[in-house]
Amino acid sequence: MLKTHAYAAHNANSNLTPFSFDRREPRANDVQIDILYCGVCHSDLHQVRNEWGSASYPIVPGHEIIGKVTAIGSAVSGFKIGETVGVGCLVDSCRTCPDCQDNLEQFCNTPTFTYNSEDKVSGGTTYGGYSSRIVVDQHFVLHISDKLDPAAAAPLLCAGITTYSPLRHWKIGKGDKVGIVGLGGLGHMGVKLAHAMGAHVVLFTTSTSKIDDAKRLGADEVVISKDAEAMQQHRLSFDFILNTVAAAHNLDSFTELLKRDGTLCLVGVPDSPHPSPSVANLIFKRRQIAGSLIGGLKETQEMLDFCAEHNIVSDIEIIPIQHINEAYERMLKSDVKYRFVIDISTLNAPNS
Amino acid sequence: MLKTHAYAAHNANSNLTPFSFDRREPRANDVQIDILYCGVCHSDLHQVRNEWGSASYPIVPGHEIIGKVTAIGSAVSGFKIGETVGVGCLVDSCRTCPDCQDNLEQFCNTPTFTYNSEDKVSGGTTYGGYSSRIVVDQHFVLHISDKLDPAAAAPLLCAGITTYSPLRHWKIGKGDKVGIVGLGGLGHMGVKLAHAMGAHVVLFTTSTSKIDDAKRLGADEVVISKDAEAMQQHRLSFDFILNTVAAAHNLDSFTELLKRDGTLCLVGVPDSPHPSPSVANLIFKRRQIAGSLIGGLKETQEMLDFCAEHNIVSDIEIIPIQHINEAYERMLKSDVKYRFVIDISTLNAPNS
Repeated sequence: MLKTHAYAAHNANSNLTPFSFDRREPRANDVQIDILYCGVCHSDLHQVRNEWGSASYPIVPGHEIIGKVTAIGSAVSGFKIGETVGVGCLVDSCRTCPDCQDNLEQFCNTPTFTYNSEDKVSGGTTYGGYSSRIVVDQHFVLHISDKLDPAAAAPLLCAGITTYSPLRHWKIGKGDKVGIVGLGGLGHMGVKLAHAMGAHVVLFTTSTSKIDDAKRLGADEVVISKDAEAMQQHRLSFDFILNTVAAAHNLDSFTELLKRDGTLCLVGVPDSPHPSPSVANLIFKRRQIAGSLIGGLKETQEMLDFCAEHNIVSDIEIIPIQHINEAYERMLKSDVKYRFVIDISTLNAPNS
Repeated sequence: MLKTHAYAAHNANSNLTPFSFDRREPRANDVQIDILYCGVCHSDLHQVRNEWGSASYPIVPGHEIIGKVTAIGSAVSGFKIGETVGVGCLVDSCRTCPDCQDNLEQFCNTPTFTYNSEDKVSGGTTYGGYSSRIVVDQHFVLHISDKLDPAAAAPLLCAGITTYSPLRHWKIGKGDKVGIVGLGGLGHMGVKLAHAMGAHVVLFTTSTSKIDDAKRLGADEVVISKDAEAMQQHRLSFDFILNTVAAAHNLDSFTELLKRDGTLCLVGVPDSPHPSPSVANLIFKRRQIAGSLIGGLKETQEMLDFCAEHNIVSDIEIIPIQHINEAYERMLKSDVKYRFVIDISTLNAPNS
């Protein structure tokens, strides 16, 4: 077994504290990875505080993992020792259902998430990337180009693919007018990716303080969503709006900005329901409200390659793992531009 | 001017009563039609009682019109005197916007509806098909095959196209599993059309009394939507569900029956909002909730030709126009299988 150091939550109310556990020895198809960086996703906080009601403690969060391969199983063909790799939200799936067969493992009915998920291989619960190393089946390991800064690439594994996948699925490209709602960890990636895909990008935010930054990140226009008049000027003009805001809010003010056949895509689950959206808004222009969930492994690799080609990474603030609890509090206040990434070397506990 | 006899509502609380008015003489592009039959749509009742707040009295309802051509303007090329024709929900549109250019006149921002709409040609308000004749621009007149019973074809002009258009837009065909929610005027057409397109059709109803009829109409299965266990057996199995029920209800029980990438399409605007649909239900299988509105003129003709080819008409109960107020009361109790059609000859007021 592989002794592994980590930070873990032991109940819904306490801080994350140092923790140790054993990873399995790599099996034939496994890649063993020393973790360099791990991004901090808002869902880490939801899980740690049991806000989704599915916490199985101790929880070692983290699903935006960048590391170096240190060992490979006998059947591993695609990865070499020393290579930089990534691990995202999934470490296993059934491999046989229609979703898995279609390379959309995120929709598998029996997925194994990177943390707080039943570990069908080793038993118990999976532990995530706030840890010194991880052992993952090669199907769920991603290649990370040397062109990408490894710390800033970490958030691509969740925030990146969560925004890339719907933009690709709804075939966004040159000539399209795309809205991105919210400029947080997801939203800032949405702006960068939609811009790189050639779309005319409009960022919606409630905060005037974000205008300059949104433009720097690639937004062609910024609309203050509380300004009804500014919103009205964009009526019936959007092909697609990617809504990254999970807090309950009025969706109608966005659906009515869509053209005929336009789609409002939600990627966040609100704690309390959104006000019921207007059915007339959908019917009278054949619009749609859809949802999208991260992405499959094939598409995640495609996204990482796209980011390497277009020189896209996340805007990050690197923290030592000892600052994780403070980082959670700052994340709750949206006081981060735009993603915390943990420098895992600060665990100060070399793997042996 | 053409003296025209009709039934009209004069305020939100009174019955429809006999009424006379003048139609315009046909202009170059107009087709003059003696009306034979007019279907009774639930929206007639909404408008007459001002439940949508846009009533302009007097209202002559009716937008499921079948008649015979009695005169044509000098520029009319597609229609002959004596031909059986139809008129649906629209009698004009701007003809220049992107929606009109794409043959989707139903989404035009300045449409002229067949009744209770600003009449941009003659001034005043348009009067519908509960009347002895109508004069309509040829672009908005449909050919009706002699193969179709003219009375039973009338509801195709609204109930038919409202269900045909989304089934076609979402490319329903052989191998697809399609749900139809509600067995009323729209729903019974949805069952017939989806069946004729080759889909496996499941009818959802709250009423066990409709099971036999649904099967006779073409449903392969009938599910009582109040039976949670029966619903669960269809989880994750539908490609598309067409929801014809306008009354507010829980949409989640239908979205969770959709496969990944499946669509729940709404064609009715509820008086009070549906309970806010679960966003997680959308995200975790990339499902969509969409709306659809009647259909464009090109697609309406395609639907009529499809119905002629497949021998599809509405199940109707023919009434004399003197029974229209009683028919409204019965419609409110769903006491009709499945559409009332007015025999306009009962106006007993020949056009002169």
